[in-house]
Amino acid sequence: MNSRRNFLKLAGAGVVAAGLAPVAGFSAENQQEVQYAFKRIDSFNLGIAGYTFYKLTFEKAADIMKKVNVLNLSLKDNFLPLNSNAETISSVIGKFRSAGINVYTVGVIYMAKAEEVENAFEYARASGVKMIVAAPNIDMLPLVVKKIKETNIRVAIHNHGPDNTLFPTATDIWNQIKDLDPGLGICLDIGHTTRAGQNPSVDVVRYASRIFDIHIKDVTSATKEGKTIEMGRGIIDIPGFVAALRKSKYNGMCSLEFEKDMDDPIAGIAESIGYFKGVLRAGDVVKL
Amino acid sequence: MNSRRNFLKLAGAGVVAAGLAPVAGFSAENQQEVQYAFKRIDSFNLGIAGYTFYKLTFEKAADIMKKVNVLNLSLKDNFLPLNSNAETISSVIGKFRSAGINVYTVGVIYMAKAEEVENAFEYARASGVKMIVAAPNIDMLPLVVKKIKETNIRVAIHNHGPDNTLFPTATDIWNQIKDLDPGLGICLDIGHTTRAGQNPSVDVVRYASRIFDIHIKDVTSATKEGKTIEMGRGIIDIPGFVAALRKSKYNGMCSLEFEKDMDDPIAGIAESIGYFKGVLRAGDVVKL
Repeated sequence: MNSRRNFLKLAGAGVVAAGLAPVAGFSAENQQEVQYAFKRIDSFNLGIAGYTFYKLTFEKAADIMKKVNVLNLSLKDNFLPLNSNAETISSVIGKFRSAGINVYTVGVIYMAKAEEVENAFEYARASGVKMIVAAPNIDMLPLVVKKIKETNIRVAIHNHGPDNTLFPTATDIWNQIKDLDPGLGICLDIGHTTRAGQNPSVDVVRYASRIFDIHIKDVTSATKEGKTIEMGRGIIDIPGFVAALRKSKYNGMCSLEFEKDMDDPIAGIAESIGYFKGVLRAGDVVKL
Repeated sequence: MNSRRNFLKLAGAGVVAAGLAPVAGFSAENQQEVQYAFKRIDSFNLGIAGYTFYKLTFEKAADIMKKVNVLNLSLKDNFLPLNSNAETISSVIGKFRSAGINVYTVGVIYMAKAEEVENAFEYARASGVKMIVAAPNIDMLPLVVKKIKETNIRVAIHNHGPDNTLFPTATDIWNQIKDLDPGLGICLDIGHTTRAGQNPSVDVVRYASRIFDIHIKDVTSATKEGKTIEMGRGIIDIPGFVAALRKSKYNGMCSLEFEKDMDDPIAGIAESIGYFKGVLRAGDVVKL
């Protein structure tokens, strides 16, 4: 009984230990298989990409984040228009902070003109974030780099799959930024990557030095017609992606972008977060 | 590009294959680590234990089951009182069937008196199920065995942890039934097992021959004070339990019993189901 209690305590404590007493009811050769303990090995964390809440009020969005206990948000402009003044920005960010929510980045922000670049950096500065997730036109990149150097705010360019002629995949982003300032990077969207016929598990390792942010999701097919679906119900190899994340030593956010049932997304968000955590935990298990 | 498309197709198809083409972007020694494919190895299925819906209407319960895409139900008497006549039983079971929900068992049904045993078997027969989840008094077991033989309906006795003096753990059930009819078995509640200081991963293997049904959940501590919590947030080693399930060759249902936020449980149910599926899928991954 005592060894079982220790086993359970150990499992709950999230630590690694060795030398557990044998577990009753298993033959000697099976002992190893049941003596698990958890080791937290991940340097990345979970968040929600704000587009998930595009049709919801602040209150509903905050309630969902608390219910699923994921409190890092990539803020989309539905909660804070891009033309907001400093007072409004401070007030909205404060509202999130009061709800226990950490706004870690803003975006996706389109940057087709110089004024949009300037405005995005001012908006990010007033929001207190250190990163912008962006969709800049290529001729804006010199100005984006200038602003990164001025403000020390990084920019993660978001790949948008076959719907987007500028940056369908991380490869398209990498080819534009690889020789530019290291503050310019990638927000890898694993759904759009898959829809473009590319493997996100490969891209997250290949472009590791410039992956600043990640949008996680699942999709129904590896084609332009692929739609968001609850994680685990689609075709993306999430365990393989988690293994690749760990290989890449990624230490940013994995933010769920759930673009289904947008009027009432709570079940799909919770199932997706649960699924990702289940995959993480299963991969965390260390045989003693 | 072509090898990546094949990779994605394979991942989606749920089959095992060997000899995938190398994945671009990985060094030779890393190839193996990214060449995953899925193999469905599980003979068990997912369900919901009806107590989860104790405070909800039929419509709300059916909606949640459809949203999380888990359509096997252990029917609790809130939807169908134990004193219902055959016509009512047939009508309610039909309502579930029309909603695409498979009522695979009824219970938990308490059996303290002979009339309650007789009634439970009549109720089960009229419901069309082949199993009752029950909490019988020990002096009722001879009558229960007689009814099992008469009706060919099996009985799974539910362990209820430290709150219950009759059957806290599967061991207590096993000791009463091991020499009785093989149609008498166990509904292993992994939460109550843990609250009683016993390890469900051990019990599911040790008593495999008589485990007919399983209530899955997570709990906050391995004591009487332990409460249900979203799977993955508590102390139960779910990956270890899944490994033990597979070892035991269990082929029944794993039904989530979520006893938290019972007025509005959808987020917790969805997160728990997602988590369990994530653990299953991560364990399903086979390195080629």
